[in-house]
Amino acid sequence: MSWLPPLREELRGIEPYGAPQLDVPVQLNVNENPYPPDADCAADIAGAVLAAATTLNRYPDREFRALRQGLSEYLAVESGVAVPWQQVWAANGSNEVMLQLLQAFGGPGRTAVSFAPTYSMYPEYARDTATGWVAGRRREDFGFDLEHAEALLGEHRPSVVLLPSPNNPTGTALPPEVVAPLCAMAAAMGGVVVIDEAYAEFRRDGVPSALELLAEHPNLVVTRTMSKAFALAGARLGYLAASQPIVDAIRVVRLPYHLSAVTQAVASAALRHAPSLLGKVAELRAERDRCVELLRGAGYAVADSDANFVLFGRFADRHAVWQGLLNRGVLIRETGPDGWLRVSVGTASEMAAFSTALADIRDNGVATPLLEGSQS
Amino acid sequence: MSWLPPLREELRGIEPYGAPQLDVPVQLNVNENPYPPDADCAADIAGAVLAAATTLNRYPDREFRALRQGLSEYLAVESGVAVPWQQVWAANGSNEVMLQLLQAFGGPGRTAVSFAPTYSMYPEYARDTATGWVAGRRREDFGFDLEHAEALLGEHRPSVVLLPSPNNPTGTALPPEVVAPLCAMAAAMGGVVVIDEAYAEFRRDGVPSALELLAEHPNLVVTRTMSKAFALAGARLGYLAASQPIVDAIRVVRLPYHLSAVTQAVASAALRHAPSLLGKVAELRAERDRCVELLRGAGYAVADSDANFVLFGRFADRHAVWQGLLNRGVLIRETGPDGWLRVSVGTASEMAAFSTALADIRDNGVATPLLEGSQS
Repeated sequence: MSWLPPLREELRGIEPYGAPQLDVPVQLNVNENPYPPDADCAADIAGAVLAAATTLNRYPDREFRALRQGLSEYLAVESGVAVPWQQVWAANGSNEVMLQLLQAFGGPGRTAVSFAPTYSMYPEYARDTATGWVAGRRREDFGFDLEHAEALLGEHRPSVVLLPSPNNPTGTALPPEVVAPLCAMAAAMGGVVVIDEAYAEFRRDGVPSALELLAEHPNLVVTRTMSKAFALAGARLGYLAASQPIVDAIRVVRLPYHLSAVTQAVASAALRHAPSLLGKVAELRAERDRCVELLRGAGYAVADSDANFVLFGRFADRHAVWQGLLNRGVLIRETGPDGWLRVSVGTASEMAAFSTALADIRDNGVATPLLEGSQS
Repeated sequence: MSWLPPLREELRGIEPYGAPQLDVPVQLNVNENPYPPDADCAADIAGAVLAAATTLNRYPDREFRALRQGLSEYLAVESGVAVPWQQVWAANGSNEVMLQLLQAFGGPGRTAVSFAPTYSMYPEYARDTATGWVAGRRREDFGFDLEHAEALLGEHRPSVVLLPSPNNPTGTALPPEVVAPLCAMAAAMGGVVVIDEAYAEFRRDGVPSALELLAEHPNLVVTRTMSKAFALAGARLGYLAASQPIVDAIRVVRLPYHLSAVTQAVASAALRHAPSLLGKVAELRAERDRCVELLRGAGYAVADSDANFVLFGRFADRHAVWQGLLNRGVLIRETGPDGWLRVSVGTASEMAAFSTALADIRDNGVATPLLEGSQS
């Protein structure tokens, strides 16, 4: 067949985004929660879907009030910040939330800014909405360089600033002393600041959520997801909290009925099991801290992490390390700056398998760190 | 709060799309199937979700092979056309399918074309993807004017032609003698033709599906949905069949994991119940034909319909008729060309309620047709 579809120029030759989906025993590559919903929660989810199934011939509630109410109550418990349900919005994964934000506030003739290394989907959201894309940089230790950021904002006057906190793939959280001035500066040029808190539940004690700044900054958007701490990656539920004008703006670009009655039922049921679903978070944080110590003890550079993953390195040939681990049944992620690798935090036995496999390939001369000493 | 978000100029002042969601006894406004899934089907759906729930901590299969296989098998039975699963693609409702098509093949500097009266979401998909939008026209009897269409294509050289068949809101199906030359003409200018067959299962005997033209036209896309005949509007599952290059192109713009494990499980379970879910289609077609006859008998102009709705008129004040019906507990849709109204086909008792209410307000002098005689 010689006919070629009229694929946009900028999309030609591009591979669809996505980590390899390989069937290996130890999957530590996409920052999933290793603990599935328990039997009680699974049964309640199925029960909620059974109830929804009897009216599946009808379109779902376009405003999904019950789910937004549940998310609002959850945020109040998790972060201590009260956000009325009307200021909560959700979509099929936080990537659809981001797409909607860029459809409303980005688009042709506008620019979105982030700071590398950062989440590799951001430029794709920009591309898919024809939004200009500018990536600044982080400091060598992955900390945020406010002075550089302010200069970049001044130069490009972005309508959207995208900042993950904790940052993916480095695990670095943003302090309020960074977020607040960026919001003020962006507001002055008419832009919004999106703090992507996909991994917020894993933050260390004393690290605040950007939700605490919502009341002061009408141009601040805080996104969250049920895919990570909530152990619900398969259900695809991302959400945001923001001022009312922002939520009202997003409602203009959302596809009608974008959130199915089933997704609404599943997410609402899961929220009722928040304590058990989140019960493993403390354990995962401890496992994460052990992983950081262990890697540092072995001489690797390791970024401080407030997330459920750890960035470590540096390697002369990181692909060889990744492949060596895969050969031993451990799948991690080849992402981040050159020479670094990212490992998701799994169960204690999965982390033991990772560490045994890493030691084994190091004995074979492959995983020797380039730089001794910890990164931060 | 004086701060305004940087909503794009073209989105300001726009109300979010959507028919009123009102709680009235007889809902004939959004072309839903009035029959819910039966108890067996609902139980199987819940069972499939229970099985999926135990691994909801993991991301879903990005390629949703099992579901695509099920859709492929269903199309073969429904239309007699074999489409390999690799040439089937799905998303959260056919509106997400359309968005993905326009993200890949539309966008800045490109144009999408349709012919009015047509589905009112099309210009919104174009707007949300920064695609230029040109609407040609249909004939007075809502038939397709191929000569006019060819002239319009020649003038605007669209990269996407969007054609519903049966057309919404008129119910008019497109014959292959229209689709085939449009595909050939669009192909010559590098464009794709999207035939939106959301209502295809309701077509009258002898009316073919555009699926029959797929093998000959690599630039043809046929979209379908489980929301209408399949009685699964609440589950949000739209899909398409097209040549492999088109499906491969869409994979570049789809958001990763856009289709949840739950949606995949629900749709696959429902497909196993296709005979019972579709069992009511023959009844709805008969009810539709009765509705057309009844309205024509009462002196209204009525468009021929191959869908599960009927466009009728014309009224000096259609809003008064709509409101009069609503006051009597019957919600229909104020859409289509001036003076026309659209009623979805419901159960026999719902249609009786509609017809009683219409007669009642006509007795009050409101619903008198402007023109006597049927439209076609």
